[in-house]
Amino acid sequence: MNILLTSVGRRCYLVEYFKDALGGNGRVVCVNSDPLTSGMAAADTQYTVPRVDSEDYIPCLLEICKKEEIRLMLSLFDIDLPVLAKHRGQFESLGVAVAVSDPWVVETANDKWLTYGLLLEHGLGTPMTCLGIEAAWQALRNGELVFPLIVKPRWGMGSIGIHVAEDPAELEFFYQYTRKNIIRSYLNILASNDIDNAIIIQQMVEGQEYGVDVLNDFSGNFLASVVKRKLAMRSGETDIAITENNDEVRKIAESIGSILRHRGNLDIDVMVEATTQIPYVIEFNVRFGGGYPFSHLAGVNFPSVLLRLANRLIIRKESLEYKVGVCGLKALSPRCI
Amino acid sequence: MNILLTSVGRRCYLVEYFKDALGGNGRVVCVNSDPLTSGMAAADTQYTVPRVDSEDYIPCLLEICKKEEIRLMLSLFDIDLPVLAKHRGQFESLGVAVAVSDPWVVETANDKWLTYGLLLEHGLGTPMTCLGIEAAWQALRNGELVFPLIVKPRWGMGSIGIHVAEDPAELEFFYQYTRKNIIRSYLNILASNDIDNAIIIQQMVEGQEYGVDVLNDFSGNFLASVVKRKLAMRSGETDIAITENNDEVRKIAESIGSILRHRGNLDIDVMVEATTQIPYVIEFNVRFGGGYPFSHLAGVNFPSVLLRLANRLIIRKESLEYKVGVCGLKALSPRCI
Repeated sequence: MNILLTSVGRRCYLVEYFKDALGGNGRVVCVNSDPLTSGMAAADTQYTVPRVDSEDYIPCLLEICKKEEIRLMLSLFDIDLPVLAKHRGQFESLGVAVAVSDPWVVETANDKWLTYGLLLEHGLGTPMTCLGIEAAWQALRNGELVFPLIVKPRWGMGSIGIHVAEDPAELEFFYQYTRKNIIRSYLNILASNDIDNAIIIQQMVEGQEYGVDVLNDFSGNFLASVVKRKLAMRSGETDIAITENNDEVRKIAESIGSILRHRGNLDIDVMVEATTQIPYVIEFNVRFGGGYPFSHLAGVNFPSVLLRLANRLIIRKESLEYKVGVCGLKALSPRCI
Repeated sequence: MNILLTSVGRRCYLVEYFKDALGGNGRVVCVNSDPLTSGMAAADTQYTVPRVDSEDYIPCLLEICKKEEIRLMLSLFDIDLPVLAKHRGQFESLGVAVAVSDPWVVETANDKWLTYGLLLEHGLGTPMTCLGIEAAWQALRNGELVFPLIVKPRWGMGSIGIHVAEDPAELEFFYQYTRKNIIRSYLNILASNDIDNAIIIQQMVEGQEYGVDVLNDFSGNFLASVVKRKLAMRSGETDIAITENNDEVRKIAESIGSILRHRGNLDIDVMVEATTQIPYVIEFNVRFGGGYPFSHLAGVNFPSVLLRLANRLIIRKESLEYKVGVCGLKALSPRCI
C-alpha cells in the first residue's frame, strides 16, 4: 500500500519511519508547495503541489490519491489540517484512511484562544491568557498577569515569532510588531476581518518543559502515550529530549486526548513551573510534531501502528511501548538533492 | 594521528568528515562545555571542558593535547578563536598544527566594526555601517542610511538576535532591546566597559546571498575557494545551497583571504543586491561555518587537506576542486546518545 504525507516540509525522518514501516511493500509519496526540502528529497515519489490556500489544492491531492493508489494520508502542517479536515470525506470515498481529526478538533488546536478555553473548561492547568492588548492591560492592573509575558499570534503561523515582553514598553512594542507581521503575512486569509483579536498575551511560565505524544486510532480511541523531558530547543523545535515516566504529565496529556478524540498523533507541550512544580499546558497540535523522533527512538512505532490500522491488522503491543531514559538528539546530516 | 576539534557544538558532520579523512589512522577528539550536542556524540573521544572564558580552559586543552597525542587542532566557535590565537604558540610547542589565525585576524572577523573598517580600507563593497545609535540617527538625517536597517551586536554573540528595523520607532526599540540583552549575556566579558559601542546599525541589503569558503595553508597561502548560492536559511544558518561559478563573488572572497592571510578555512557572506547586482560583503568568520557541507558535497575536501598539511604531505589536486551546480541540504537525522 502507498502512503501520502502532505506538507512534508523538513520532516525527512518521518518519511524514513514510514518507509521502514512499509518494509518495501509500498511507497511513501510526499507533497509540498516548495520542492526544495529534505522531506521531499527523502520521498519515494514527490509532487510539488499548489499552496494549501489555493482552490486547486484539494483537487490536486485527490488526483494524486487516485493515481498513486494511496491508502493512508496524513499532514505535517497546522495550516493544512483544517483544509484536509473539511474535505476528509472525499478522500475516504476513495478508500484512503485519513489520520486527520474532526474540524472542531483541528480548529481548537490551531486557535490558541480556543485551546485556552477548552483547557479552562476541563479544569486543566494552563497559563492565564488574554485576547488582545486591552485585556492584557486590564489583567496587569488586576494582578492576574505579571511580567514577563508571552506575545504570540493566536493562529499558528510558522514564520512569525513568539516574543517575551518584560515590561509595558516591550509589551506595547511586540504587540504592534506582531500585528504588523500578521497583516503582512496573512492579509488575504484572516487579518483583514479580525486583526484586533489575532494576538494573545499569555503569562510566561518558567520551568521544565515536557513534550507528550498521544496516539489514538481512527475512531479517536486511546492507544499509547510517550512523555519526554526537553533538554534543548532550537528555533522553537525540540533538539534534545529524554523519555521519562512522569504520571502527572502523562495523565494531563491523555485527558486532552480523551477530550479531543483526535485521530493519529497529538503533540502536547507542558511546562512544569520551577518552584511550584505545577504543570501548565502550553499548547497542542493534532499531528506529528518535531518531538516525535524522541518517542520513536525510545521504542514506539506510531507510523507502523497507523499503517496497520489502515490495513485493519492487529496492532503489535511493542509498537506502543517505550523505554524510559532514552536520550535522543537531531543531528544535521548534509546530503545532495 | 589524532585531531582535536574545540567548541564542536552541533557540527557532527565535520566530525564525520575528519573521521573519513583519517580513514581509521587516528581519532577525532572533541571538546565542548556542554556535553549534550551532536558534535560531541559523533566524536571518537569527547571531553567536557570549562567554558572558553575560564582560566582553566587553556591548561585543560593542553593536557588533552598531550594525553591524546593531538597533531592538528581547530575550533568551530567565534568566541573560542581569540583565546586559542593568543595561546597558539603553547600548542605548537607540543607539536600541534593549529588551524587558528593570528590574533588581529580573529579580532577583525569577530568585531563587525573592525570588519567594516577593513573592507572599506581595501575598497571592497560592504553595507554602510554605524557604530551606536547616535551615528545612525545622524546618517539617517544625512541620507547615508535608509530604512530598513539591521541592528546587531558588534561582537559575535550566538544567542542574541539580529533585528530588522523598518522605522525610527523600531530602530530605537531594537537598539535598546539588543543593549539590554548584551548586558545580561556578557556582563562580565565586555559590556560594562563599552556597551555604548557594542551595537552596530547597518544598511539592509536585499538580494541573493552567497556563501564562500576560502582555504589557506598554515602560512596563509591560498589553496582553494568555493562559491555557493544560498537557497534557504534557518536560524541564521544555511539550510540549502547550490555551488556556482561566480567570478565576481569569488574574486572578492579571495581578496579578503589574501588580506587576512588566515589559516585554514574562511567563511564569507556576500549579498548581491537585487536591482543593482552590486556585491556587498556582509561578514566573515575565520573558521568552518555552517555552509561548509555544501562545499564538501560538491567535491572539495578541506578536512583532508588540513590533515595532509599537518603531516607535510603533498595535497591532492582533487581535494581542492568542486563541481558547479551541486545542490545540498541539511537533513535532520534523529539518533540516540
